[in-house]
Amino acid sequence: MSTKDESTRDDAVAYPLLAAATGATPSRRPVWFMRQAGRSLPEYRKVREGIGMLQSCFRPDLVCEITLQPVRRHRTDAAILFSDIVVPLKAAGIDLDIVSGIGPVIEQPVRDAAAVAAMPELDPEQVAPVAEAVRMLRGELPAGVALIGFSGAPFTLASYLVEGGPSRNHERTKALMYSDPDTWNALLGKLGDIAITFLRAQAEAGAQAFQLFDSWAGALSLADYRTYVQPHSERVFAALRESAPALPAFHFGVGTGELLGAMGEAGADVVGVDWRTPLDVAVGRVGPGRALQGNLDPAVLMADRGTVEAQVRRVVAEGDAAVAAGATGHVFNLGHGVLPATDPDVLTRVVDLVHEL
Amino acid sequence: MSTKDESTRDDAVAYPLLAAATGATPSRRPVWFMRQAGRSLPEYRKVREGIGMLQSCFRPDLVCEITLQPVRRHRTDAAILFSDIVVPLKAAGIDLDIVSGIGPVIEQPVRDAAAVAAMPELDPEQVAPVAEAVRMLRGELPAGVALIGFSGAPFTLASYLVEGGPSRNHERTKALMYSDPDTWNALLGKLGDIAITFLRAQAEAGAQAFQLFDSWAGALSLADYRTYVQPHSERVFAALRESAPALPAFHFGVGTGELLGAMGEAGADVVGVDWRTPLDVAVGRVGPGRALQGNLDPAVLMADRGTVEAQVRRVVAEGDAAVAAGATGHVFNLGHGVLPATDPDVLTRVVDLVHEL
Repeated sequence: MSTKDESTRDDAVAYPLLAAATGATPSRRPVWFMRQAGRSLPEYRKVREGIGMLQSCFRPDLVCEITLQPVRRHRTDAAILFSDIVVPLKAAGIDLDIVSGIGPVIEQPVRDAAAVAAMPELDPEQVAPVAEAVRMLRGELPAGVALIGFSGAPFTLASYLVEGGPSRNHERTKALMYSDPDTWNALLGKLGDIAITFLRAQAEAGAQAFQLFDSWAGALSLADYRTYVQPHSERVFAALRESAPALPAFHFGVGTGELLGAMGEAGADVVGVDWRTPLDVAVGRVGPGRALQGNLDPAVLMADRGTVEAQVRRVVAEGDAAVAAGATGHVFNLGHGVLPATDPDVLTRVVDLVHEL
Repeated sequence: MSTKDESTRDDAVAYPLLAAATGATPSRRPVWFMRQAGRSLPEYRKVREGIGMLQSCFRPDLVCEITLQPVRRHRTDAAILFSDIVVPLKAAGIDLDIVSGIGPVIEQPVRDAAAVAAMPELDPEQVAPVAEAVRMLRGELPAGVALIGFSGAPFTLASYLVEGGPSRNHERTKALMYSDPDTWNALLGKLGDIAITFLRAQAEAGAQAFQLFDSWAGALSLADYRTYVQPHSERVFAALRESAPALPAFHFGVGTGELLGAMGEAGADVVGVDWRTPLDVAVGRVGPGRALQGNLDPAVLMADRGTVEAQVRRVVAEGDAAVAAGATGHVFNLGHGVLPATDPDVLTRVVDLVHEL
């Protein structure tokens, strides 16, 4: 344990992201952007030419290059592993594809006990290319830039599997959840196992933190989140704390203003906040003892320079207010992923401004 | 004034919805469902066969019949005028259509000062078929069932016009809002005028309450809502209070947990709450002196009978707690519109249960 504690402390000094995430004092306010590696960058569109999304997620050289692109360009304090939420499902052998303009499409949606029983497990060997990319990245990343691993959370993975793809209302998912809790819990248990295996593989290969994305949890009421979802996310965080205690755990979902406290309690060190809830309000819901991440509206980046600057300053001020109110740190980020139409120069200017303030 | 006050008081006695909305004591807890008139009903699908959505909204006989269908079937305490959010825009002469599977499609999106200047006004004559439907409905509705009029709010109408149709991120809308506040305010001013004219036509024809739907306002942070949107919604409420003071004003948008206080302050007598925010939490944000409406998750209606009943009981209990905490009433509703796949018998059972509790 003591070596692990020391490695955390050393890392916290060297990496602003890890410092802010663990209650230490960062040398500067860390900033990164969800979906920073992706379609907003011309160099990304170039290397992806003719290569399918899923295909690219299993090529270590491409994952490494794409993950590095925004770090080179924007000088962010973290790299987020380039991947997709369905990558561990694909790796485990579930028949799915990512269709341009739609998103993930599951060949055989999982909607009953038999389908859940038939779901494969994930063998770490099946995500070896991702682990290889993580190892490459640790050799390539500039000093002080932390590598964040990534997995979808059980609920969000379940929504894709049950609906068969992206969904506006998640109604089949909720119908299964309400009507057949045993099957539901079996499904989320299996998906929790997959997330654990996927995150452990990344941690063992050198990821320095991880974010569990529960992208669609915000579709749930607080009561339903606590009953049907939180225990499964909690198990993922507990398993990672057991096997990789030095890695700070980030947790985020869009539209989760009412769930922030429960998502923190699930085991997150850093709770991501979407742009709808001001950080100085969020701290009251999360409670003291955890850091906050966020939360500039990604659409603000489409605005003029003066508006972007004013809104960045507002978020930084609210982050400071949150820290004064008991949050253990503030990681600057957007309140959701980078929109594909974003001008990358605007992102670079945001990074510079956050570092200046 | 005194006649108006008396008519309000008399109506409040005779109509549970109006009583709950105006701080009087309803004879029973009123219940209706957003989008209760529509695709969940086989009798709706039958009368709409071969008739386009917009076409049906301008045929008084059809509007009347479709508005009555859920009242007959479910015995709700209110009828919501069957219409669409873009109806007043279409009536004013804006070139648009409702495309099945997509939603409204605007032929020429409105994205600059010239396009805003060229926007037509709405003449009350252009919505005469809607007013005619309202008059027919007042003759047909059963005793005690109130007729709620309906308009889109300026922000939500603007999002359709600027984006050219439904949008996930509203990024063009926000870009215009941030970058060119003069054009933005001119646009929302014109849309406010259209909403006022549309609602006044309904009020004069006999609507007994109205709901201003700001469906997409929940995409905004509180700070942006207050700066760019609230003044325009406020003007609509003020104009209706001036010309139709007896009509309680309802206001709703999905995902507006952080905006509930500001939406009440805009001038709503009844603040609609989506299912994410428990009513006994919502009352703290709205403050005392207004009624609340909501907020069963529409997806719950896909669940088994026991789950539906338990969740209805929870919402009713939270509504009671909200009233105990200062809300002036509780109107039972869903936290969003009825999903098309909903079994109508489940809706009928919900009405019965709410009336029993």
